[in-house]
Amino acid sequence: MPLNPRRAIAELKELRGLTGDANGAQRVAWTDTWLKARDWFTAKLTGLPVEHHYDAAGNNWVTLAGKSKKSLLIGGHLDSVPNGGWLDGALNVVAALEVLRRINEEFRGQPPVTIRLVDWADEEGARFGRSLLGSSAFAGTATIAADRSRTDRDGMQMEEALRRCGVEMDRFPEATHEQEDAGAYIELHIEQGPVLERLGLPLGVVLGTKGVERHAITFHGQEAHSGSTPMNARRDALAACAKLALEIRAIAGKHSDAVCTMGSVKTFPGIVTAVVGRCEATLDQRDLDPGVLAKMIREAREASERFASEERCTVEWSRIWQIEPIEFDPRMLDLCDQAIREVAGKSHRMPSGPLHDAAEVSRAGIPTVMMFVQSLGGISHNKIEDTREEHLEIAVRAFDRLASKAIRFLS
Amino acid sequence: MPLNPRRAIAELKELRGLTGDANGAQRVAWTDTWLKARDWFTAKLTGLPVEHHYDAAGNNWVTLAGKSKKSLLIGGHLDSVPNGGWLDGALNVVAALEVLRRINEEFRGQPPVTIRLVDWADEEGARFGRSLLGSSAFAGTATIAADRSRTDRDGMQMEEALRRCGVEMDRFPEATHEQEDAGAYIELHIEQGPVLERLGLPLGVVLGTKGVERHAITFHGQEAHSGSTPMNARRDALAACAKLALEIRAIAGKHSDAVCTMGSVKTFPGIVTAVVGRCEATLDQRDLDPGVLAKMIREAREASERFASEERCTVEWSRIWQIEPIEFDPRMLDLCDQAIREVAGKSHRMPSGPLHDAAEVSRAGIPTVMMFVQSLGGISHNKIEDTREEHLEIAVRAFDRLASKAIRFLS
Repeated sequence: MPLNPRRAIAELKELRGLTGDANGAQRVAWTDTWLKARDWFTAKLTGLPVEHHYDAAGNNWVTLAGKSKKSLLIGGHLDSVPNGGWLDGALNVVAALEVLRRINEEFRGQPPVTIRLVDWADEEGARFGRSLLGSSAFAGTATIAADRSRTDRDGMQMEEALRRCGVEMDRFPEATHEQEDAGAYIELHIEQGPVLERLGLPLGVVLGTKGVERHAITFHGQEAHSGSTPMNARRDALAACAKLALEIRAIAGKHSDAVCTMGSVKTFPGIVTAVVGRCEATLDQRDLDPGVLAKMIREAREASERFASEERCTVEWSRIWQIEPIEFDPRMLDLCDQAIREVAGKSHRMPSGPLHDAAEVSRAGIPTVMMFVQSLGGISHNKIEDTREEHLEIAVRAFDRLASKAIRFLS
Repeated sequence: MPLNPRRAIAELKELRGLTGDANGAQRVAWTDTWLKARDWFTAKLTGLPVEHHYDAAGNNWVTLAGKSKKSLLIGGHLDSVPNGGWLDGALNVVAALEVLRRINEEFRGQPPVTIRLVDWADEEGARFGRSLLGSSAFAGTATIAADRSRTDRDGMQMEEALRRCGVEMDRFPEATHEQEDAGAYIELHIEQGPVLERLGLPLGVVLGTKGVERHAITFHGQEAHSGSTPMNARRDALAACAKLALEIRAIAGKHSDAVCTMGSVKTFPGIVTAVVGRCEATLDQRDLDPGVLAKMIREAREASERFASEERCTVEWSRIWQIEPIEFDPRMLDLCDQAIREVAGKSHRMPSGPLHDAAEVSRAGIPTVMMFVQSLGGISHNKIEDTREEHLEIAVRAFDRLASKAIRFLS
């Protein structure tokens, strides 16, 4: 039985039917729908000569033992954001299953190296605001003390929600044992952006994941009556923030792949009859080059202080979260490039703006690469997220080629 | 017993103690604390030869009958915003009471014209979002059908809340009967802005109330992933809105007393990791000149369309509320000017940005004027709202002079 990309697409649709609704995918980690998706996946393993278990962080490991213990890891995540798309995460897991079947067939149950498919737990962090949870436990970068008391919108603590799924956060460090014999890691993902579509290409090689710096920025002015306060007597916190919202585009624009986003603005008191006394904004900055990232933060901070001063306001910054840029393995990048060229003719190297579990695996020192497939309209985290079926087929084929090349790389 | 401005100040403090707390004044209309303030006021009438009753809209009328039925109305409002100041509204009522006592004394219970003190019901509209409620019923401009089903934050309907205070909205039109024999209306109020303080003057003559145009403006762009969407592929609704937030200052700046305020901005989905797909803002524009007001709306709308187009977004406008400019009576303006000059030496004519019950009275065709007293720091609708006591004393004296001049005007 040769590789069957159409089966993978049919299985993705089956999963969508089982775990989605009119608003999109509902496979939020640590919920019943997510557990249902995992049970569905486990049932698909029937008849394959594999061992499977959940590690101490809830990652699901499926192992096809090879002649060598050295392992090729192939990863993804079944969890989604609420009202998410059908491909984000699930494509990796389902394509990996198809690749596993092909390898099992070709090598009659015993490939040259061990193949390990992993379904990471809680990549999205949708419920508790902590993404890459399972893969960070694997990499040994978990932040248990900071995370255990996170709560969802109903007030349930993260620790309790995980316990209900059989996962004890105190045991997270044990998940690092899964690193043993890991020789390489590959991951297929939808791009979630418009770059490949604009280039007219189905597939791309991911250079790494951009570093991310997230800050909360608060401008303090003076709340004042909209009717009685002359324009020149105002200390309008919104005006200072509006200047920054525009300036971050120039700051990002100096660098080819850099992005700066003001995603949230809140005004206080936030009523039609009052000049804004306090304006709270978020700033998300990303680049693959740590020097560029540091420069962008500095420039944004200086600009915010200049604008605050111009508007007779003050400004405060506090860091929400950060992660350094992660560059993938150059040898793995070349293998991915070759696989794409063989199947699609032309390849393209690009950084990933979104984070992925591959970043955590790479941090653990395991040679890693990701392959991107085109997203329609660049839309993701939305029920209209989609990719042309011919591109999904090409993606499964190229990913399978990459697996073969990685096996040879490890042999 | 001559006019005693210090007694008025002492009574204002008494009222503050009775109806305020650590967060400020709590005399929100149609609440128990407001009813307590009204009972306190009624008790102050003991010993004065006055008739008092509540009209069909809950306005409290206190009448000192004169030789002529022709009436001088002196108005204010005891209701406040939540966490409000001690002077907004209450100063008018308490100063008017002091003036009433002086007139009663001087004319031994029978002044040349009838004097009617009115405590308007629900000037602020703090609970149901409908300001000038009682005075609009008096003027015959009430909008009962649109207002009756307004709800407070606990879901109680306006109609029901008024009924609990003995007011039936269906009977509002009867309040217009109070217009009978009304010859003039005067009102003293704190400025609630910084103009008089900047000029170093205690008192000002109010030319009228600015027209107000309030719009909800929504920019529609495209929600997109902050990491995967290149800067040049974005349709950032916040960017379009930020441009407008800055442009409205230039639009207002062309006219000396005009103001434009963006008081509320809401971003959707409003998360740190997404380009803003939809941005909702409010715009409040005010001027005393209807032509200026119309021009400012047109310019803001054109600018919003230009910015939407630049950012590949669309924009929608919808009117929230509007009121035309109200210019007070030129003869009454002169009387107010004279009264201020006699007491304070120097006067200043200025429009009022905030609305006042005087606007509704003026709409009813009754010759009207307001007097402003300086506000410290221009702050109002806040527990720190304040006016220097020497200025409050001067204000009561000048307002009393204005009452005397108005009596002569009507005699």
